[in-house]
Amino acid sequence: MRKRMYQIKKTEGRAKRAELVTVHGTIQTPVFMNVGTAAAVKGAVSTMDLKEIGTQVELSNTYHLHVRPGDDVIRQLGGLHKFMVWDRPILTDSGGFQVFSLAGLRKIKEEGVYFQSHVDGRKIFMGPEESMQIQSNLASTIAMAFDECPSSRATREYVQASVDRTTRWLARCKAEMARLNSLPDTINRQQLLFGINQGAVYEDIRIAHADAISEMDLDGYAVGGLAVGETHEEMYHILDEVVPHLPQNKPTYLMGVGTPANILEAVERGVDFFDCVYPSRNGRHGHVYTAHGKLNLFNEKYKLDERPIEEGCGCPACRHYSRAYIRHLLKAKEMLGMRLCVLHNLYFYNHLMEEIRDALDEGRFSEYKAEKLAGFEKMT
Amino acid sequence: MRKRMYQIKKTEGRAKRAELVTVHGTIQTPVFMNVGTAAAVKGAVSTMDLKEIGTQVELSNTYHLHVRPGDDVIRQLGGLHKFMVWDRPILTDSGGFQVFSLAGLRKIKEEGVYFQSHVDGRKIFMGPEESMQIQSNLASTIAMAFDECPSSRATREYVQASVDRTTRWLARCKAEMARLNSLPDTINRQQLLFGINQGAVYEDIRIAHADAISEMDLDGYAVGGLAVGETHEEMYHILDEVVPHLPQNKPTYLMGVGTPANILEAVERGVDFFDCVYPSRNGRHGHVYTAHGKLNLFNEKYKLDERPIEEGCGCPACRHYSRAYIRHLLKAKEMLGMRLCVLHNLYFYNHLMEEIRDALDEGRFSEYKAEKLAGFEKMT
Ligand SMILES: [Zn+2]
Ligand SMILES: [Zn+2]
Repeated sequence: MRKRMYQIKKTEGRAKRAELVTVHGTIQTPVFMNVGTAAAVKGAVSTMDLKEIGTQVELSNTYHLHVRPGDDVIRQLGGLHKFMVWDRPILTDSGGFQVFSLAGLRKIKEEGVYFQSHVDGRKIFMGPEESMQIQSNLASTIAMAFDECPSSRATREYVQASVDRTTRWLARCKAEMARLNSLPDTINRQQLLFGINQGAVYEDIRIAHADAISEMDLDGYAVGGLAVGETHEEMYHILDEVVPHLPQNKPTYLMGVGTPANILEAVERGVDFFDCVYPSRNGRHGHVYTAHGKLNLFNEKYKLDERPIEEGCGCPACRHYSRAYIRHLLKAKEMLGMRLCVLHNLYFYNHLMEEIRDALDEGRFSEYKAEKLAGFEKMT
Repeated sequence: MRKRMYQIKKTEGRAKRAELVTVHGTIQTPVFMNVGTAAAVKGAVSTMDLKEIGTQVELSNTYHLHVRPGDDVIRQLGGLHKFMVWDRPILTDSGGFQVFSLAGLRKIKEEGVYFQSHVDGRKIFMGPEESMQIQSNLASTIAMAFDECPSSRATREYVQASVDRTTRWLARCKAEMARLNSLPDTINRQQLLFGINQGAVYEDIRIAHADAISEMDLDGYAVGGLAVGETHEEMYHILDEVVPHLPQNKPTYLMGVGTPANILEAVERGVDFFDCVYPSRNGRHGHVYTAHGKLNLFNEKYKLDERPIEEGCGCPACRHYSRAYIRHLLKAKEMLGMRLCVLHNLYFYNHLMEEIRDALDEGRFSEYKAEKLAGFEKMT
């Protein structure tokens, strides 16, 4: 019934250049989604700014929006798109990761998780159906399945049991999403659902899980539970092993990753959706990305530096302001300093993805990647 | 030699509709100057934003910029206009007020003030010549004379002695400014100098001082030391008494004032330059101005309010975002909430001044003021 939403335009090795057609517009991949946890990108960045810096997809957080202002409030206000005034795609995570990392006392059962809000301590229950209901209320373009992200220090037995439960939860997510999308008063009845691969550092568990969820015909597949403390090499190795067990003809999303170098390596391994808080978090600390490494604008040596953060950069910070001025703002704790650094960093990531897409289009990704990595050498 | 810089276009009672031609463009008065203490308006507002919200004059702070990043740094970077990327007029205050309110241990002598920096505690001396030198380094459009702002609780004897010293300091400021403007490597050799009337609540001291400084042929005259705790009626009374003793054919600046109602009352009494931190400070606390009173956006009743802060407002916040969204941002401590409120409030003030100028142009200021005040009733 549905037309083919995800189309691969070009490949180079395992790297994919694709597009995903959604009800809120077409996403060109590889894409870096810009994180706006509580329906706003931290650093005083608005959705108007996101348009200016070339953002394709905004990513918001189910858990945060559920506790404040409440998904019921956002539903009454017409959904997240209308609430934050953004007409392009939005991906919402499932809340699982935050429940497991932010919430107080929690208890995991087959039905879901009992926990306390980090805002006011009130008791909340969230299971697959609740997560889908919340995301349906938010009316995002892409909903993420509710999963458990087991600790990288968890035992093999714990991880196996957790992953098995995540698979059962995924079936419940899919059924509930289908039900919600069929209701006449659902805001976005074409909401997509991505499943999430887990398994910590246990390759065989991850592969078996990837095989199992691949059969469930979801709209896309994410690799979760990485970038949580393992080395970059371990992460690349898991991608090498797992991605070939996920459907190539579906979007492949590496959650919470990462540095520009991580992204280039992951694109090479077949990933085409990314998100990460690094550019906004680093920006708020005055750490800014350039093609030749990351700069710390608090450094004394920028005191009289009249150059923009990066020569030739088209972002709103570099088009107007000098390193010396932004350094002063940061030192004086003026919010404007953070805002300018965040705008630059997000533009840098969005622009990097554009370059990656161009390189893939022109069949020169491999050279592009090598060159870019050489330039990034100083970056961490 | 200089052409007539300040020209009155229209009067209505004592109210003046004028323009001041400066090297950085013409200022239409009455005008509200937007306060960017440390070379940036608090709330992540950039000079690009100021252009968008109709700011004519930016006001920066001599004391703050002297201690950080240092006026020597700004001079090396080509002056404040180049530093913050603003090609319209800038007024710098003299640093006097901050020395007397922010600095630690201080000692006032005939030559100037010895005090400690509030940033790093280092000892600083500032007198009339130092203040002029710093402001010349900043290369603002309008420099303010270095004065003492005596406490409203000071004795008559103290105030009289202080005002007499301020008069002697003003003569030194004028001489030093003339010297600096004659130097070939001064960035802005057409820097203007405004003198400041003081005298606390002692009418006769203020009047004698106004008469004395009026004879010194400065580029403009300010009334300082008001809005520091006296009632609005006391302030209006002092304006009634003092403004007629300042030259009508020079700009008249009421420092640090005030609410929209204060501005309307002061325009009626012949004031045409204003500045105040209220709109940005209130904005950062979610208090926003409308024609029908001030709203506290933290209030529960805006939770589902889809209207903009003010219907028909052309500011960047109201053109896109709802009260409900901005309330959520404020509650979630997202900087974007503060930014949107500050943008609205500054636009509100700038727009109010535009309406005041239009009313004066059309000879209906008196009716306009009455109507506006009736609407503001709820405002404080
Ligand atoms: Zn930039
Ligand atoms: Zn507005």
